[in-house]
Amino acid sequence: MQNIRVAVDAVVFGYKDHQLNVLLIKRKVAPFQGSWALPGGLVLENESLEAAVERELKEETNVTIDYLEQLYSFGKPDRDPRNRVVSVAYFALVKPSHHKIKADTDAQDVAWFPINELPELAFDHHLILDKAKTRLRNKLTYEPIGFDLLSNKFLFSDLEKLYMTILEKKIDRRNFRKKIMSFEILEELDEKVSEGRGRPANLFKFNKKQYFKLQKEGFLFDIK
Amino acid sequence: MQNIRVAVDAVVFGYKDHQLNVLLIKRKVAPFQGSWALPGGLVLENESLEAAVERELKEETNVTIDYLEQLYSFGKPDRDPRNRVVSVAYFALVKPSHHKIKADTDAQDVAWFPINELPELAFDHHLILDKAKTRLRNKLTYEPIGFDLLSNKFLFSDLEKLYMTILEKKIDRRNFRKKIMSFEILEELDEKVSEGRGRPANLFKFNKKQYFKLQKEGFLFDIK
Repeated sequence: MQNIRVAVDAVVFGYKDHQLNVLLIKRKVAPFQGSWALPGGLVLENESLEAAVERELKEETNVTIDYLEQLYSFGKPDRDPRNRVVSVAYFALVKPSHHKIKADTDAQDVAWFPINELPELAFDHHLILDKAKTRLRNKLTYEPIGFDLLSNKFLFSDLEKLYMTILEKKIDRRNFRKKIMSFEILEELDEKVSEGRGRPANLFKFNKKQYFKLQKEGFLFDIK
Repeated sequence: MQNIRVAVDAVVFGYKDHQLNVLLIKRKVAPFQGSWALPGGLVLENESLEAAVERELKEETNVTIDYLEQLYSFGKPDRDPRNRVVSVAYFALVKPSHHKIKADTDAQDVAWFPINELPELAFDHHLILDKAKTRLRNKLTYEPIGFDLLSNKFLFSDLEKLYMTILEKKIDRRNFRKKIMSFEILEELDEKVSEGRGRPANLFKFNKKQYFKLQKEGFLFDIK
């Protein structure tokens, strides 16, 4: 008789303090008690995988997400010291300012971590996160995902930083701006904010209506 | 206590008789006894998901595949009438002429089916197949997957038909040929064969060495 459990884990990315962040919880129970981990847990008998990951996220972090995309399933026989567990990982992109995080149930803490300053993670969660980063990088080339991560109004420099973080390389700022603006899906607003010691810069807004219109017409968002 | 089983299923595509085909088995046991289904079965306690799908394929169809790519996990609570089963689906592209298929264990038959002439499938296997077709369609735009499916030597018309089947639309034959040939990864051979009532046409061969060389140099295969 097969003795394998099925779990779900969630990789939730957000852009915060001018950096790409990921949502982690601090485990309350063994194994890996006190370690940081991706939110997640065992699937209940009668719930779908999607319902399970939404429930676990809500329970452990207070974050409500309607749509999580399935990422990959992780099933190495020894990935959990207690019992064999196959985890179906999901991922989502959110605007951190729209969610009030709060630890609960088997999480003793919850926090956003900049992707470049991660603590050691429980289980094989660093593998799950790596897979999510690769997916994010691929999506970046054919979907304007930056706009799911940034606040409704943002500085152009934040969009640049986001792309550089995800692509893990410098970008040619002039060409990037030219290319993004040529899609005509960004609106430059009259509002200005100053960031650091630089002079005030204009805020931008994503024109979703225009994007969906272009998409219907066969427009391909394409940054490489 | 959670009572969910973990299974794997395999979607194996091949190009045969000038059509895209998928490998199916006829079930020997209930449920869906006598129905056609994707090869697959429960994961053993100590084997990885990849080892499980390779084993099931070998056992049920006699096909040996070293590399299967994970496709998606299917976990609706009622997808199996016996017990809740989460299936991790994999997919692979093969050259049918390189494999001798033979039914075994819980399969009473095994056969290649043209993708446009499928029988009714057991469980939610039509959903798994749909997902695989979508993945195949996406891959087609950034990888020369046709060459994994076709025989080593093939007619240009087979490459065309393959693209039309997967993309589910007519293609402009002249532009398609021009574009494919511009990549310089196809070699036109001196050998000719006649197909149907047409005059003999030249055979082609994929120049893998050249493709890998170009790929290293940052070449992007791109058909849209």
